[in-house]
Amino acid sequence: MELSHVRHSSWIPDGESSFLSSKCDHKRFTRLRVKLVRCSTTLASSPGTLDLLSPLEQLTTAEPRPVLKLAKAFAPATVANLGPGYDFLGCAVQGLGDFVTAEVDEGVEPGKVRIKNITGDSGRLSYEPLKNCAGIAGKSTMELLGIKSVGLSLSLSKGLPLGSGLGSSAASAAAAAVAVNALFGSPLSKMELVYAGLKSEAVVSGYHADNIAPSLMGGFVLVRSYAPLHLIPLVFPSGKQLFFVLAIPEFEAPTKEMRKAVPQMIELKRHTANCSQAAALVAAILGGNAALLGEALASDTIVEPARSPMIPGMAAVKIQSMKQGAYGCTISGAGPTAVAVTDDESKTEAIGASMVLGFREHGNLRAGYSVHKLSKDGAKVVESLDF
Amino acid sequence: MELSHVRHSSWIPDGESSFLSSKCDHKRFTRLRVKLVRCSTTLASSPGTLDLLSPLEQLTTAEPRPVLKLAKAFAPATVANLGPGYDFLGCAVQGLGDFVTAEVDEGVEPGKVRIKNITGDSGRLSYEPLKNCAGIAGKSTMELLGIKSVGLSLSLSKGLPLGSGLGSSAASAAAAAVAVNALFGSPLSKMELVYAGLKSEAVVSGYHADNIAPSLMGGFVLVRSYAPLHLIPLVFPSGKQLFFVLAIPEFEAPTKEMRKAVPQMIELKRHTANCSQAAALVAAILGGNAALLGEALASDTIVEPARSPMIPGMAAVKIQSMKQGAYGCTISGAGPTAVAVTDDESKTEAIGASMVLGFREHGNLRAGYSVHKLSKDGAKVVESLDF
Repeated sequence: MELSHVRHSSWIPDGESSFLSSKCDHKRFTRLRVKLVRCSTTLASSPGTLDLLSPLEQLTTAEPRPVLKLAKAFAPATVANLGPGYDFLGCAVQGLGDFVTAEVDEGVEPGKVRIKNITGDSGRLSYEPLKNCAGIAGKSTMELLGIKSVGLSLSLSKGLPLGSGLGSSAASAAAAAVAVNALFGSPLSKMELVYAGLKSEAVVSGYHADNIAPSLMGGFVLVRSYAPLHLIPLVFPSGKQLFFVLAIPEFEAPTKEMRKAVPQMIELKRHTANCSQAAALVAAILGGNAALLGEALASDTIVEPARSPMIPGMAAVKIQSMKQGAYGCTISGAGPTAVAVTDDESKTEAIGASMVLGFREHGNLRAGYSVHKLSKDGAKVVESLDF
Repeated sequence: MELSHVRHSSWIPDGESSFLSSKCDHKRFTRLRVKLVRCSTTLASSPGTLDLLSPLEQLTTAEPRPVLKLAKAFAPATVANLGPGYDFLGCAVQGLGDFVTAEVDEGVEPGKVRIKNITGDSGRLSYEPLKNCAGIAGKSTMELLGIKSVGLSLSLSKGLPLGSGLGSSAASAAAAAVAVNALFGSPLSKMELVYAGLKSEAVVSGYHADNIAPSLMGGFVLVRSYAPLHLIPLVFPSGKQLFFVLAIPEFEAPTKEMRKAVPQMIELKRHTANCSQAAALVAAILGGNAALLGEALASDTIVEPARSPMIPGMAAVKIQSMKQGAYGCTISGAGPTAVAVTDDESKTEAIGASMVLGFREHGNLRAGYSVHKLSKDGAKVVESLDF
């Protein structure tokens, strides 16, 4: 694990969890879908129509009491899009992410949150709760829980650089949602917490779940539809190797501008080609086939070609990583981070070095690289304090 | 199994086979891909560029001698597109298909084929070998084998109605390819025979493999790319139930006109939606989830909406089949056949009857229905005669 080149890096161990949804437990999954369908039809009749001003519908039958005084949660970085999986596929990676500590705070008006502290953001994030990813997700989680009797304060410790294409906003939101839920005994499932995260994402980078869902749930998550919201966890078989090499250049790609670069009309033949590559990507994930995963991830003919020229050096980074044995390489999220995949740990150093060199020589950008496994757990509580 | 309403129906038992490729044997699969890549780069540098006038490159190292005097093969009907899998996904179904008998014939010029007999086509198919699906595929298989010393005659028995959307041309081609290959001891794999079938398909309905590949290989097949040709067998888990209810109206939808109905430019949001549904379709197949398979298959927002109005009654057929418990329903191939899916055999009769009624009442079309399981085998030899 090479982290020394990455600014603001956080590391946390990530083993197997007993979280049912990410293991595709069908009985539980079905029960949840019913609830989500009911919820989503009232909340979000189509993508983008989430009412940002109205509170979320309460999912609990009665307001739960806090069972902890403090809960600290970690949520991992996510690689969304994965080439042809644009806007509907993402995965969580170990070793990078954000921490949020939620506390019951008598100094805060009941039903409200305040942001108590933010570190690791170089002073760039707002302390206004409804202008802060963690604040919005924390408040939205309180709405889902139906919390009206206590106020909470949140402390955010950013491990992820902003605007890096690694789901920085989603990680803050996911950590806040899990921490707030934990204070009340975690009555909501991670799938239910996706609603709180979606509200936060809608404010920051558009109504899309391909970062927030994997950051919460772990593994690969396919967003099949938004109305109703239907999330499908895709389990990469344990026992199969998969390494993500992330090269993060010192260059901020604003998510909204990168979205604008994507063509609004697609030729049929490109549509069909990308669809078949997305289908192959799913087959690769479920089959644990890292080579096919890399090939499919590198085969996007729509979004990557439009965005790649906006990230200096990206085209060279892709070519050079694959010359060093990466099965494929593409832009992580909306960039500028480049992600390459391999199942051979011994190649990761050469792949990472070639990517850093690519950014430097062809993009005149300083960059660092790090190597990550899939985070199967997603967001989780790492510390708690009883009353 | 209800077949009485279907004209020209053929039935053949279809059990488990030991065919390696359709079982995803990765070692063999990798070896084949190398060969196919080599082959495809010389034969077809991009979709549609297959040279219809030039012979296919020989894949054998030496011309094989015939080991049989006669071989009769059956190839199953196929359901292509499957909604969002437009042009890259198809599957083979049991109980419907074409037969081709290939014979070593001293009366035929060495290296050539002739069409000796055609039944079940109401006199509509050509006896000119290079204007007949079975003839083109038979001749192309001889080219792949390198046959120059003997001539062959082919007899075609059509079980599939023409222009029905069930891969009629592909079934004839697949049966011819398997029968000719069998005469020489079957040195070519089914994946290699796809090249012969593709040449035939290119003449009849465009250069696409989503019927010919599953008709040859069985099961579900994902066509990831054409240049190089990369076919991915998707194994629906044995032990999971899946029934296809096919309603075939008396209405011929010409494949080329149905292709023209498909929009050439796709809005980004529709592209993303269809991609995510195609991805879900693959997850459903590999997970043996018939409900999700049906939901995804019924969720195409691009091709089905464009073609459905051209098939009288189709919209009603879809709605009525789902009211009777089908998980989903869409157009099979380019139509006019409608395909509905369920995992509950007890519902198939009501689903089929509702589809027939839908075509009659809303489309003023007579129709029949039949119920089919997945054909895991694909094309196979059913009869042979030694010298």
